[in-house]
Amino acid sequence: MSVRFELPGNVELPENLKPAGTSGKRLLEIERARASFSSNDLAVYLYGQEYLDRMARILAIVEREEAFSKHAIFYQGRSEKFRHGLRKEKRFVALANEHGWTREDQEMAEFLIDMPAAFGLHKSMWTTTIRNQGTEEQHQMFLEPSLKYEIIGCYAQTELAHGSNVQGLETTATWVPETKEFEVHSPSLTASKWWIGGLGRTADHAAVMAQLVINGKRYGPHPFVVPLRDIKTREPLPGRTIGDIGPKVGYLMTDNGFLLLDHVRIPHNHFLARYSQVNPDTGEYTKPAHPQLAYGTMTYIRAGMVRSARDVLARAVTVAVRYCAIRRQFVDRDAPQVEDQRPVENQVLNYSLVQYRLLPILAQAFAFHYTGVAMYRQYNENQEAMASGNFSLLADTHASSSALKSLVTITAANAIEVCRRACGGHGYSLAAGMGSQYADYLPQVTWEGDSYMLTQQATKYLMKTFRALYSDKNRTSDGSPTAAYIKSYLENPQQKAQISYSGDFHNPRMFIEAFGFRAAHMIALLVKKRDIERRSWNSLLTEIFRASTAHAQFVLVWNFGNAILKDDGLQKAPALQRVMQQCFDLFACYTMDTEAADFQRSGYLSSEQAELLRSKVDELLTVIRPQAVPLVDSFKLPDYLLNSALGRDDGEVYRALFDFAIREPLNGTRFNVDYTSSELGIGEEPLAKL
Amino acid sequence: MSVRFELPGNVELPENLKPAGTSGKRLLEIERARASFSSNDLAVYLYGQEYLDRMARILAIVEREEAFSKHAIFYQGRSEKFRHGLRKEKRFVALANEHGWTREDQEMAEFLIDMPAAFGLHKSMWTTTIRNQGTEEQHQMFLEPSLKYEIIGCYAQTELAHGSNVQGLETTATWVPETKEFEVHSPSLTASKWWIGGLGRTADHAAVMAQLVINGKRYGPHPFVVPLRDIKTREPLPGRTIGDIGPKVGYLMTDNGFLLLDHVRIPHNHFLARYSQVNPDTGEYTKPAHPQLAYGTMTYIRAGMVRSARDVLARAVTVAVRYCAIRRQFVDRDAPQVEDQRPVENQVLNYSLVQYRLLPILAQAFAFHYTGVAMYRQYNENQEAMASGNFSLLADTHASSSALKSLVTITAANAIEVCRRACGGHGYSLAAGMGSQYADYLPQVTWEGDSYMLTQQATKYLMKTFRALYSDKNRTSDGSPTAAYIKSYLENPQQKAQISYSGDFHNPRMFIEAFGFRAAHMIALLVKKRDIERRSWNSLLTEIFRASTAHAQFVLVWNFGNAILKDDGLQKAPALQRVMQQCFDLFACYTMDTEAADFQRSGYLSSEQAELLRSKVDELLTVIRPQAVPLVDSFKLPDYLLNSALGRDDGEVYRALFDFAIREPLNGTRFNVDYTSSELGIGEEPLAKL
Repeated sequence: MSVRFELPGNVELPENLKPAGTSGKRLLEIERARASFSSNDLAVYLYGQEYLDRMARILAIVEREEAFSKHAIFYQGRSEKFRHGLRKEKRFVALANEHGWTREDQEMAEFLIDMPAAFGLHKSMWTTTIRNQGTEEQHQMFLEPSLKYEIIGCYAQTELAHGSNVQGLETTATWVPETKEFEVHSPSLTASKWWIGGLGRTADHAAVMAQLVINGKRYGPHPFVVPLRDIKTREPLPGRTIGDIGPKVGYLMTDNGFLLLDHVRIPHNHFLARYSQVNPDTGEYTKPAHPQLAYGTMTYIRAGMVRSARDVLARAVTVAVRYCAIRRQFVDRDAPQVEDQRPVENQVLNYSLVQYRLLPILAQAFAFHYTGVAMYRQYNENQEAMASGNFSLLADTHASSSALKSLVTITAANAIEVCRRACGGHGYSLAAGMGSQYADYLPQVTWEGDSYMLTQQATKYLMKTFRALYSDKNRTSDGSPTAAYIKSYLENPQQKAQISYSGDFHNPRMFIEAFGFRAAHMIALLVKKRDIERRSWNSLLTEIFRASTAHAQFVLVWNFGNAILKDDGLQKAPALQRVMQQCFDLFACYTMDTEAADFQRSGYLSSEQAELLRSKVDELLTVIRPQAVPLVDSFKLPDYLLNSALGRDDGEVYRALFDFAIREPLNGTRFNVDYTSSELGIGEEPLAKL
Repeated sequence: MSVRFELPGNVELPENLKPAGTSGKRLLEIERARASFSSNDLAVYLYGQEYLDRMARILAIVEREEAFSKHAIFYQGRSEKFRHGLRKEKRFVALANEHGWTREDQEMAEFLIDMPAAFGLHKSMWTTTIRNQGTEEQHQMFLEPSLKYEIIGCYAQTELAHGSNVQGLETTATWVPETKEFEVHSPSLTASKWWIGGLGRTADHAAVMAQLVINGKRYGPHPFVVPLRDIKTREPLPGRTIGDIGPKVGYLMTDNGFLLLDHVRIPHNHFLARYSQVNPDTGEYTKPAHPQLAYGTMTYIRAGMVRSARDVLARAVTVAVRYCAIRRQFVDRDAPQVEDQRPVENQVLNYSLVQYRLLPILAQAFAFHYTGVAMYRQYNENQEAMASGNFSLLADTHASSSALKSLVTITAANAIEVCRRACGGHGYSLAAGMGSQYADYLPQVTWEGDSYMLTQQATKYLMKTFRALYSDKNRTSDGSPTAAYIKSYLENPQQKAQISYSGDFHNPRMFIEAFGFRAAHMIALLVKKRDIERRSWNSLLTEIFRASTAHAQFVLVWNFGNAILKDDGLQKAPALQRVMQQCFDLFACYTMDTEAADFQRSGYLSSEQAELLRSKVDELLTVIRPQAVPLVDSFKLPDYLLNSALGRDDGEVYRALFDFAIREPLNGTRFNVDYTSSELGIGEEPLAKL
């Protein structure tokens, strides 16, 4: 091998040096040869052929684009990263036009390029808000030029001191009957819009959420379009103070911004008026007919977050599983592996503690997959129902989506870090591809409803459902799985697990029943504390969080378990059915084991059964271990997306790490280490002083 | 307020805008007025006056140095960060000389400046290795010029494919009797030294760990000094291929490097020969008399890691507690706070779920404090004992230090992220000071013994102790707390918690007994599985990890509990004693609750008792809540160290966030957002192509 720098400062490596021992390439081949199923078949089953074809088609275009190259980013500071991102955005629009990319094509391209940047919120929240909340006239004014990128918008809701509590926003939009305008104003420093993606340096329009005030009376937050910058000069218009809020842990290509408005006047038609209106002549306010409709959109966004959490887990665990199948460390003294009649070090993935850390994440990815699919289906059913005036499904799907958003984002964020640590020292290199994945994923835990706060919405609904079913025992359940498990609990609150052997931890119906019972028990305790002991809501927040989590885990087990029992695609493919059943078993057993204290506290599981459960988890790790590489292969995440020396499909880990090292621009400079000298790089201009 | 940019690109904020509501400054004053003890007294008790005086003295010097400024770093790319770090290192040496800083002074300065950079490993591992393992002659050759920075060294142990398994290192040092030299060589690509701090661009010497080979026979890894670069030109010497390994998640000012050696010859006196020697005439190898001595150094390093974990927790929780006392969100409907006769939003710190996330971390910081103190004491006792030939204390202190290293690093890394999330959206800004703290702390989990792997060393010792005490019931315990709890378990393995009321969770002796019993039970199960069921070691690694964690938790409870019972400083100061007892109770109860499944599985704790325990945790959160700000104040971490808009001592959070935003250099440029244009910044040279 003789890899050379692409960047200045060549380091020439000695010729003919190879990695010691069996190559990573060969080790992955051996792993793949042990598959009990076809990774390709599993991929088609999971994603559908259309999705995979789209991925191949888009990948071929994006991975050869210089503007989408992922190399230079590693070395850039904030300003360069922002410019790199802006370049990517421009090239993206041009390519989308050139190839006539559909919305799905564009989503695929964004997924693969994986560089959220300046136009991100323009393409999502801005256009969605105008589309959903604007009138026909407003679509013409704002949406059409936005789709042509003639204007660039952003969505300005969060303020410096108000994120979670939208009702507490300080920005006001006061109706001025004399001129038929709204005056949008920031009454304090903390009223400044803050964190607004694309606002800092890019957008020329904003959908500003402001407290509507008419004749001194407040009507709560509503959306207003506020022009921000001169379209040509890009200078802020009078009365707008705008800037980027500075660097963050990730998302460095995005210009999250702040905005202070000083008595800015906008015309009447800049109030987005599809659902609520202010009569321009009388100043009379009309409120939306169905304010619940907003919850429909939320469940759609959260279905996307569950699917995206699946992809996040898949990506992190692909890297970790492949690398741990290649990395070797220590000879196993009890059972040494032998090659060429010599004991060799053990693949790290053979260590049970590594399996315990990684394989449940693999199983979770499939659990998230099935629940993501179910959520999109429920969203569609619900939209149809609401269109015909039926809002009965909304509460349950919205509550479950809140609980799931909380659980999957926390799980996925933590899982990236678990996978990174399982890669040992090299996990800390940006070459692993996991540091930046983690940094960019973290906001998911906080935005779209803080994942800790949000559990209150879910549990409030669960408690309400519990009370209704409790007070009227003859009430028939509404058909939701939530009502079903609560009813079942109420019928037999002394239920015990029917488990005598570790082999009994297998039937999806048993797990569905167990997770339902445990969630119902936690809800029952909460209702008792709140209604009988009269505990304050605040004092119960930790238990509320736990109950929401228990419900979300039930939903995951329910969707995954039902797929194992009934899914057509699996029934037709026994090899896939078998490996998915194994993953289901691991997911259910591992989750039950980590939550064993709850299951025991409810009296459902005995200490002896908890002990059996733990050995069942151990057993399942051994069962799934040989399928780990084929399973991550089935996620079909291309090297371009993984952007990881450790997770490469070809297993050439060590050459890739060297390749990464010799690209480091610092290697082109020698440094003056004499502490009395103010010269840093030799030959560079010395500093004025140290 | 009229804050102006220090960097180009002024954004002028509107005059006279203030944050809405009660100011952060006032809110912190109110918090501080509620203290049940003096923060200053607690600080003196924890650190000693000498330490606090040193901090004040050094802080006054370092915080006004431009080379130690923490502002510019936020915006820099890798190359600029490295240069910033090198500048810091040079200025540091000059200042240390100028002020005659002692080792403690320098450690304090590094702690406050918080910029690990190019000379870091020179100052620590390189000089320590030469000092500990070199002869007098070698001290003269290498140590003396190192202390004067005439040569810069690094410590080259880890290789591309070998980190944890030091015995598996590939680099060889072969004795060449003809010339009385060693030939140091990298036989493969994976033999490359990797991750070596200071090697990439800085060091001119390395202590290379290599397999000593004499006459075809291997004697295991030994340390050799290998000159790397020409002292003047900084060019690598012949046969050395050297470079920086590229960017990482953190530590971007440090040039972690790689090194391939191609048959490099070094003289006989470059083998560090204090403990083992090669006779230059006969080639005869003498092995070290007391190879265990190395473990002494390890326990010292780990005591430092426990103390540093305390500081890490203290820093993260200081930021989060102060900000959550200032941030308000939602009116508490059950019990609205009222100001000026209007309901106001609740301080986030009043929410029980926020308390549940933050206050146990506060309590852990104190737990780590007491154990850190105990470890340094044990290290000294042990060094004295070994000097007089007594190695009896070594095994126990080494095992406990392994278990503690694992637990405290994992706990601290996770805690930073918990604190960051508790700050909501602003926690994601680099202005919070937590993103970079996390990024720089992470390696602690992996280095100095991977925190997952390392638990094997601890548990192996625990199992051995168990077997010895089990097989000889009359054997008197060796006086270690480990032996004492195992003996107590063996005498009564059916023990139950004597708890009838939540108030019973209070006596330190009860907690010490409980944590000892639980650890012993886990060890007993492991011994049974290994010795009777003949399970493989590998199959038990998860339980081995858990047993080590249980032991480490016992040690933390033991040291903290004994301080509550006996510590002189506390006995003399009832106000401090009381608040430390509260923190102890919370630490012990919270830890027991999170591990409740273990305590229940052993039969020690019943479901009812577990339920009582949970309400005790809730109760303690309420007790400690009013003391939270005074408690974090007692850590005495200056604003310069925290480097956080959210954690400022004066509470001026929102002004500080604005100050951070307007410094962003991007705010000095307007951008061309026309997607057909290859111009990015307006007026900048357009790109050749998009």
